Amino acid sequence: MPYVTIKMLAGRTEEQKKALVEKVTEAVAETTGASKDKIVVFIEEMTKNHYAVGGKRLSDEQ
Amino acid sequence: MPYVTIKMLAGRTEEQKKALVEKVTEAVAETTGASKDKIVVFIEEMTKNHYAVGGKRLSDEQ
Amino acid sequence: MPYVTIKMLAGRTEEQKKALVEKVTEAVAETTGASKDKIVVFIEEMTKNHYAVGGKRLSDEQ
Amino acid sequence: MPYVTIKMLAGRTEEQKKALVEKVTEAVAETTGASKDKIVVFIEEMTKNHYAVGGKRLSDEQ
Amino acid sequence: MPYVTIKMLAGRTEEQKKALVEKVTEAVAETTGASKDKIVVFIEEMTKNHYAVGGKRLSDEQ
Amino acid sequence: MPYVTIKMLAGRTEEQKKALVEKVTEAVAETTGASKDKIVVFIEEMTKNHYAVGGKRLSDEQ
Repeated sequence: MPYVTIKMLAGRTEEQKKALVEKVTEAVAETTGASKDKIVVFIEEMTKNHYAVGGKRLSDEQ
Repeated sequence: MPYVTIKMLAGRTEEQKKALVEKVTEAVAETTGASKDKIVVFIEEMTKNHYAVGGKRLSDEQ
Repeated sequence: MPYVTIKMLAGRTEEQKKALVEKVTEAVAETTGASKDKIVVFIEEMTKNHYAVGGKRLSDEQ
Repeated sequence: MPYVTIKMLAGRTEEQKKALVEKVTEAVAETTGASKDKIVVFIEEMTKNHYAVGGKRLSDEQ
Repeated sequence: MPYVTIKMLAGRTEEQKKALVEKVTEAVAETTGASKDKIVVFIEEMTKNHYAVGGKRLSDEQ
Repeated sequence: MPYVTIKMLAGRTEEQKKALVEKVTEAVAETTGASKDKIVVFIEEMTKNHYAVGGKRLSDEQ
């Protein structure tokens, strides 16, 4: 606890994801007082045909 | 805002998904007063072996 | 199926929410071919101090 | 209703998943009084590079 | 791990919820082989005006 | 994008939550390259009777 879910488009490298969970975990620990080893992070990737803003999917934009 | 997540079985065509996000976005804008360009839609697909009703997965039905 | 979750700021009236689930359900049925009575809609409301864009909560804006 | 989502690492067999949804559905029916055929279970699998505890992804551990 | 989220209408007693998390945890441990003390359960309650089947909220039914 | 959901027990102060969303947003921007103003953070609070580890709710521990 806390449990953090990060939803984003696929395409980041493994190095970016590794840094992402490290830095987010530090930010949560520092501001909430939670013990770092209790913080859980989930990454959820989505594809451009499953994500729309304003009624238009990213895969339909040119 | 609002953020809409639509969870359904895989199998719809790209044309169906395109129409789905368009029509749902219009329905949300019309009824909530939210600006259309602020409405976000996520599609999440699931497979028949990961979805169960009444304790039975769809993949286990005959 | 499908299962639709609509996350938005608290503040809409019951009449708006009633219309929202009706219209969204129709939009989903029409575009996916799902039977209307199988479509489930969840509304999740959030408060301005629990929602941030660009690192700033809505409750902290003036 | 209820709707149960089980999030876990990929790797369980189909037999395990089949038993999982059966037993969880029974546990929910027995304790909540919900009719078994109204209980829905979703399985969501994650990979080791998308799951971190203590700021470290499982895929980065040796 | 696993992480189980149970979404249901408000109204169950504390005794029911206590039994629910116990029995579901046992069911998950038994079928997945996960260690019982690693299993996490979240309960999410919803109200009848935020839950609709077939385009109609439970609060709108008579 | 990205969309970050932070689920934690109720009890943090408004100052802690304000700092939490600021620092998490910075961590996400820095490591993913996403523009800061596109990053969205949701806080979801839970109560001790709706959160269990090892089959035991926090509200049932002494």
